[in-house]
Amino acid sequence: MYWSKCFIPTAKEVPVGTEAVSHQLSLRAGLVNMLTSGVYSYLPLGLRVLRRIENIIRQEMNNAQAQELFLPCLQPIEVWQKTGRDKVMEDIMIRFEDNRGRKMCLGPTHEEIITELVRNYVQSYRQLPVTLYQIQTKFRDEIRTRFGIVRALEFIMKDAYSFDRDEEGLKKNYDRMYEAYKNIFKRCGVDVVIVAADSGAMGGDVSHEFLVPALIGEDEIVKCPSCGFEGGVTESQKKDDPCPECQQQLEGHVAIELGHIFQLGTKYSQAQEALFLDDDGKQKPIVMGCYGIGVSRLIAAIIETNNDASGIVWPRQVAPFDVEILPIQIGDEESMQLAKEYYQGLTDAGYEVLVDDRDETAGRKFNDADLIGIPYRIVIGKRALKEGNVEIKSRKTSEIIMVKKEDAVVKMTGLLAE
Amino acid sequence: MYWSKCFIPTAKEVPVGTEAVSHQLSLRAGLVNMLTSGVYSYLPLGLRVLRRIENIIRQEMNNAQAQELFLPCLQPIEVWQKTGRDKVMEDIMIRFEDNRGRKMCLGPTHEEIITELVRNYVQSYRQLPVTLYQIQTKFRDEIRTRFGIVRALEFIMKDAYSFDRDEEGLKKNYDRMYEAYKNIFKRCGVDVVIVAADSGAMGGDVSHEFLVPALIGEDEIVKCPSCGFEGGVTESQKKDDPCPECQQQLEGHVAIELGHIFQLGTKYSQAQEALFLDDDGKQKPIVMGCYGIGVSRLIAAIIETNNDASGIVWPRQVAPFDVEILPIQIGDEESMQLAKEYYQGLTDAGYEVLVDDRDETAGRKFNDADLIGIPYRIVIGKRALKEGNVEIKSRKTSEIIMVKKEDAVVKMTGLLAE
Repeated sequence: MYWSKCFIPTAKEVPVGTEAVSHQLSLRAGLVNMLTSGVYSYLPLGLRVLRRIENIIRQEMNNAQAQELFLPCLQPIEVWQKTGRDKVMEDIMIRFEDNRGRKMCLGPTHEEIITELVRNYVQSYRQLPVTLYQIQTKFRDEIRTRFGIVRALEFIMKDAYSFDRDEEGLKKNYDRMYEAYKNIFKRCGVDVVIVAADSGAMGGDVSHEFLVPALIGEDEIVKCPSCGFEGGVTESQKKDDPCPECQQQLEGHVAIELGHIFQLGTKYSQAQEALFLDDDGKQKPIVMGCYGIGVSRLIAAIIETNNDASGIVWPRQVAPFDVEILPIQIGDEESMQLAKEYYQGLTDAGYEVLVDDRDETAGRKFNDADLIGIPYRIVIGKRALKEGNVEIKSRKTSEIIMVKKEDAVVKMTGLLAE
Repeated sequence: MYWSKCFIPTAKEVPVGTEAVSHQLSLRAGLVNMLTSGVYSYLPLGLRVLRRIENIIRQEMNNAQAQELFLPCLQPIEVWQKTGRDKVMEDIMIRFEDNRGRKMCLGPTHEEIITELVRNYVQSYRQLPVTLYQIQTKFRDEIRTRFGIVRALEFIMKDAYSFDRDEEGLKKNYDRMYEAYKNIFKRCGVDVVIVAADSGAMGGDVSHEFLVPALIGEDEIVKCPSCGFEGGVTESQKKDDPCPECQQQLEGHVAIELGHIFQLGTKYSQAQEALFLDDDGKQKPIVMGCYGIGVSRLIAAIIETNNDASGIVWPRQVAPFDVEILPIQIGDEESMQLAKEYYQGLTDAGYEVLVDDRDETAGRKFNDADLIGIPYRIVIGKRALKEGNVEIKSRKTSEIIMVKKEDAVVKMTGLLAE
C-alpha cells in the first residue's frame, strides 16, 4: 500500500480524556476512532491488526478441532429466561421490543443461544463431541467503559463452546483449549499469567483466566520481586501471603483479563433440556465447556505491553504491515524507483508493505513511522544513496544496518524470516 | 475436512412455513439455522460460502481503490438527527436508551456515521478522494421478514462510501464501483439486470440497482419473451410498454435486489458539515457516493438461481468446498486409503475438500451430496475399484467420468483449473 492512497490519520497530540497508553496510541496511530464513549470504529490500520489476530485465533481453534460458525447479535429474551440469566445479566443487557412485540436483547455472550442451536441438532452420543466457535460482536451496557477498547459497550470476542458426552470428554476439550490459548497469546506477543479462577456468572466448577500484567487493567495478580513468581489473587493466594517459591513478600500488580475458559458441566444443558441418548439407552444432559477471548481488548493489551516513548512496537505476527519503506525525498527519481522495486519484491515474497510516499517532512515521516510501529523500516535517502546504500532499521532494537541498495530486498526477507 | 468431524446437519424434510426454494435449501443443507423469525445463525457450511463471497467482494473493492474499515453497530441518535433520517427511518430503526441515558440505535445503514468519521479527519482537497467500505451486520426491524435470509432483521451488508472534491471525481468513483459490481456478481455466478433506479430514502440524483430475476423477490423487472431484452420497471419503462428492441409486449418478472449504488452528492456532507478547503481557498461540502450489496441476501439469490430438484448447484467460486470425496464403503481399507490420498493431494493443490466418511447408507450419502451441491464429487466404490477405477461426477452437468484410481487427483485438478 502507498500511504498517500491510504486512510491512516495519525496525530501528534495526546487525545484529551485518555489515561491508558494503549488508548492514546491506538487513537494517535489511526487504528481506531471513537464514535461515542465506549463505541469505536476500526480504521484500516486497526482492522489489519484485528484480521491478523483473528487469523491466529482461527488457526489455533481449527487445530483444536473447533469449527467456526456465526451466531446472531439479536436474541429472544425467552431463551435467556430458561437459565435465569436474563436476571443475572440484567444490568448490562441491552433490551428492546421489536415491531412484532417480541422481547429481544443484544447478545452480551452466547451460551444460551449455542445450547439452543446444538439441542436442535444433536440427539445421539454418536454426534458428540462437537466444538463450535465464532468471532463476533458482543454488547454489554457497562456504565464504566474504560481505557478505550479495553472495556467498551460494543466489542469483539472469540467465544468457543464444547459439547461432550461426559466429564472425561470435557476435560480433554478443556485441556486442548488451554493449550490453544497459550499458543494464541504467545503468537500475539503477550506474556500471559494463567490463574485458576472463580466461575462467576458463567457457572461451573473449574475455570482459568489468562491475564497480562500491565499498567492498567481491572484484574490483579501477585508477583514476587525476588524470584519472579507470578500468580492470581485467589482465595488461597492473597497479596499479604509470602511467595510459595522463596517466601519473600508478594507484590500486587494490575492486569488485563484476555481470556477465560470454563468447565460449565450441565448447567445450561439441564436448564435448556439439551439432552442426548447415550449408548446405555439413557437420556443425559450434554456436558459443556466455554472458552472466551476478548479480541478487541487483545489489541489494547498488545499495545499496552509493546510500546516506547515514540509509539507502538508491534510484535511481528500482529503488525499491520511487515515493512515500511520510507523514501525521504519523494521528488528524487532514484529514491522512488527503489521504493517501488522494494515494494514489489517484498510483496511478491508474501509480505505486507507500506510505502510512505507522502509529501511530508523527513521529521514527520520518521515520527509517524515510530508511532505506527511497523517492525522494519527501509529508509531511502539521497545522502546514503550517493554511496549506493540504504538503511534497514528495526523498530524494536533501533538497530540500523546499512546495506547496498541492490541487496535490500534479500537482506530484508532474511531478517523477516528469522 | 472429514464430514464425521464436521457440524453439517442436513435434513430430508422441507421445513414447515417456508416458501422460497433458497430458504428451504439453505435450512436443509445445514447452511443456516433460524433462531427466531428474521434472525439466522450461519452454520459452518454457510459461513464458508459467506467467506468466499466476502473475499470476492474484498478483492473487487480493493481493486476499485476502496479501503476496508469496520464501523460500530451502536450509533447515537443525535448523529441521525443532523440529516433528519432518524424520522425517515423511524419505523425500521431499533432504538434504546443506554445505562447512561444516551439515545442510541442499531445501525440500519452507515451514511451518517461514515460522514461523521470522515469529517473529523478530512480538511483539505489534498486528502481527497477517499473511498471506504466495510462488511458488517445491519439491523432493520421489518415487520414482514420474508424468504429466510432474503429479508431478515439482522443481515450482512457490504457498504462503501466515496468522498470526492467534485462531481467529476464522484462520477469516476461511481463508474469504478459500477464495474466492480458487475465483476462481483459475475464471479458469484449470478446474472444481474442493471436498472437506473429511484434514490428513495438515500437521496441524490443518479442511482442504479443490480437485480437478479428469480421465482421470489420484492422488486420487478420487465423481460421480452421474444428478443430477450431485460430492463427495470421505471417511470419511462412500464410493463405495458412494448419492448424497445423488437416492439413485442414485455412481461413482468419478480427479482431480488442485490446491490444499489447512489450518487449522493452533498446531501449528507451539507447536513453534517463535512467540509473541505479546496485549492481555490473556499470551503465546500464533500461530494459523496454510496454503494451497497446485500451479502447474506446474495447467498439466497445464488441458491435461488442455482438449484435443481435434488438440491443446490453451487457456482465454483462460492461453493463451500471444491470437491467432495465419497467413499461408499467406509469399512473398506483401500477405499479409505484412496479417500485420504485424494484429500491430501487436492488439499496440497490448494483446494477445499470434504470427505464424507460418515457411517451412512450410500443412498443417504448421494442424496446429501446432491443437496449440499459441491461442484465435483469423487465416488470411490468397491465395484469400480475392482477394475481399478473411481468416478468423477459434475454436480452441474451430472456427467460422470470413469478414471484410473491413480489418475484421480490429476484429472480432478485439471477439471478444477478449467
